[in-house]
Amino acid sequence: MSLRHMSLELHEIKKGKIEVAPKVMVRNKKQLGLIYTPWVAEPCKEIQKDINKVYKYTSKGNMIAIVTDGTAVLGLGNIGPEAALPVMEGKAVLFKEFGGIDAFPICLDTSDTEEIIRTVQLICTGFGGVNLEDISAPRCFEIEQRLKKELLIPVFHDDQHGTAIVVLAGLLNSLKIVNKKIKNVCVVINGAGAAGVAIGKMLKRLNPKDILICDRKGIINSNTTYDICYKNEIARWSNKENKKGSLVDALEKADVFIGVSSGNILAEDIIRKMNVDPIIFALANPTPEILPQKALKAGAKIVATGRSDYPNQINNVLAFPGVFKGALSVRATEINEQMQLAAAIAISEIVTKDELTSEYIIPDISYSRVVDRVSEAVSKAALKSGVANM
Amino acid sequence: MSLRHMSLELHEIKKGKIEVAPKVMVRNKKQLGLIYTPWVAEPCKEIQKDINKVYKYTSKGNMIAIVTDGTAVLGLGNIGPEAALPVMEGKAVLFKEFGGIDAFPICLDTSDTEEIIRTVQLICTGFGGVNLEDISAPRCFEIEQRLKKELLIPVFHDDQHGTAIVVLAGLLNSLKIVNKKIKNVCVVINGAGAAGVAIGKMLKRLNPKDILICDRKGIINSNTTYDICYKNEIARWSNKENKKGSLVDALEKADVFIGVSSGNILAEDIIRKMNVDPIIFALANPTPEILPQKALKAGAKIVATGRSDYPNQINNVLAFPGVFKGALSVRATEINEQMQLAAAIAISEIVTKDELTSEYIIPDISYSRVVDRVSEAVSKAALKSGVANM
Repeated sequence: MSLRHMSLELHEIKKGKIEVAPKVMVRNKKQLGLIYTPWVAEPCKEIQKDINKVYKYTSKGNMIAIVTDGTAVLGLGNIGPEAALPVMEGKAVLFKEFGGIDAFPICLDTSDTEEIIRTVQLICTGFGGVNLEDISAPRCFEIEQRLKKELLIPVFHDDQHGTAIVVLAGLLNSLKIVNKKIKNVCVVINGAGAAGVAIGKMLKRLNPKDILICDRKGIINSNTTYDICYKNEIARWSNKENKKGSLVDALEKADVFIGVSSGNILAEDIIRKMNVDPIIFALANPTPEILPQKALKAGAKIVATGRSDYPNQINNVLAFPGVFKGALSVRATEINEQMQLAAAIAISEIVTKDELTSEYIIPDISYSRVVDRVSEAVSKAALKSGVANM
Repeated sequence: MSLRHMSLELHEIKKGKIEVAPKVMVRNKKQLGLIYTPWVAEPCKEIQKDINKVYKYTSKGNMIAIVTDGTAVLGLGNIGPEAALPVMEGKAVLFKEFGGIDAFPICLDTSDTEEIIRTVQLICTGFGGVNLEDISAPRCFEIEQRLKKELLIPVFHDDQHGTAIVVLAGLLNSLKIVNKKIKNVCVVINGAGAAGVAIGKMLKRLNPKDILICDRKGIINSNTTYDICYKNEIARWSNKENKKGSLVDALEKADVFIGVSSGNILAEDIIRKMNVDPIIFALANPTPEILPQKALKAGAKIVATGRSDYPNQINNVLAFPGVFKGALSVRATEINEQMQLAAAIAISEIVTKDELTSEYIIPDISYSRVVDRVSEAVSKAALKSGVANM
């Protein structure tokens, strides 16, 4: 059977991938009376007296809402909230299997920014955190920013920050191999969507020599006025020398290429014009910007992709379960930059110096200690940065 | 240990009562690739092509949203959405344990009618049905009516219709015992909230001699103009002789008392003024309108309460799991009057003629075949009334 048919069959047999399961038993009337009327009134009254006790007596503290509007799903684009549901259920499975976290899909039947924000505010009573997923740029930026400001629970847009954390982890290890310091490195990011912007901003904190971000029209620069507001902002914090031109121009003498846009756009010639020991993160899915064998032939020292069938898979599952586990464990009110950086460093350090090779820059997702290492680093960073709430 | 402490401990030990559990395994990269990227794209694409396939490939078809705003929780009143969460989690446990249905609590941080309606519309993509719970009257009526009109999935306000179904089941059997026909019976309902109104409307369909509904000020009648709009509507379809006066006046020569309001308000003297073989449903919780032993002493032939420590417990758990199971199994677009009536009759008929006594008018909640019997009756009624969608 083809993998396509296996997937369809797997989804059909059990009708979806998640269920809501009791953590307590109801075997007799006494148990029924304890979990429901009349005695359920006791935890209710305790929470009414002290709203913080909702973390003590309910599932809230370990429950994440996976919120999407279905506008930017995988490589499929705007497929709507119903068609997005299998992805969100899959994400819920990963949250539970990797992080022990309960996660529930909320697929919203609107792509209106204000409605999305308001709806999340109204439903978040029962959730300890919000994972925004597959919401298209630029709306995802405002939705995340506003919700972060207005909610007291962590809000995390995984397509942005989850990706950025894992990319940074891989890049830190790649630089060790090619023996370059981040301050001397010029990074080119192709794709100015959710992932590209978040990767750029996260890298920026480590002060590389320069970061160039390219959209379909070329290098984002401050001589151009962009209709999409946040691109003008990108021009302010990237591209120190205010270069203009195409992706090809951007990559001349660059050290690192990070592709988070369309597949099959990186020719071998271009890699040859990069600086010595080029690092290629060709993360477009399912078709990378360039296939690893081609990139290596053109001189790339390290190649990473988003795919599991090549070495160095940049996979968000290395980050989000541990990030949320760490944040929830200290009841952090947000997942701030320090926590994200701590997660990236924790992931990179899982690969020891002895293990590090150009084909092993990032831990395998099946390595079981990833979640705990990330979670510990994130909760420590939360405590240190003063956003823990216990 | 007291039951109060046992309840608190039970809620604290596992931090709440529900979890989101995978129905599929992720033991290796192949399985990961089937449930998540890249192969999850296949069911997504199928649903994009035909939105109905969301029932085939996701958990939607067996997933209920338990929606509350926390304004009318148990006997506790308006305790807010956080404090309502233990009740909603308990309800989710009952849905799963009794009906095999996945149910997830959505506790809304608003009591604004329009916001509640809009929010439910926006989140219902991933749900196959909506169970409204513990929303105060009169808002619950409009919210239910509007959502029923606007959604293509069943919407059921359990405090109204779940209660009405079980009360009717008990009443049908009670009438068999006292050998009265419904057309000769005068029913007095004390309490004009969600439950009282729904019980009245459901009984009305069976054409009893009369129904009188009392609020705190007495019998609702058409000479009074009520501020709360729906009470004027009650006056139109109840109280044929347009009686005025107090609950005591209402009960003179009445056959049936159904209390769904405050406890401890029914004196023995009043029962003595009722018709021969009075039937008393004293359903206020946790304190009934009159204790069974007192009611029996005053001449009541049959007494039911909401409590598990007396005979004849009128408990919604007899209805809602089977009602939803039946509706979901034929993908009904609504839970209409015919389906509700079918559920009531099915519950009543579980108690056979031979078993029927004044202390056994309604099946015990631990009787395992209740759900299947109710479910079968409901799905048949859905098919017959043309609201099934398969």
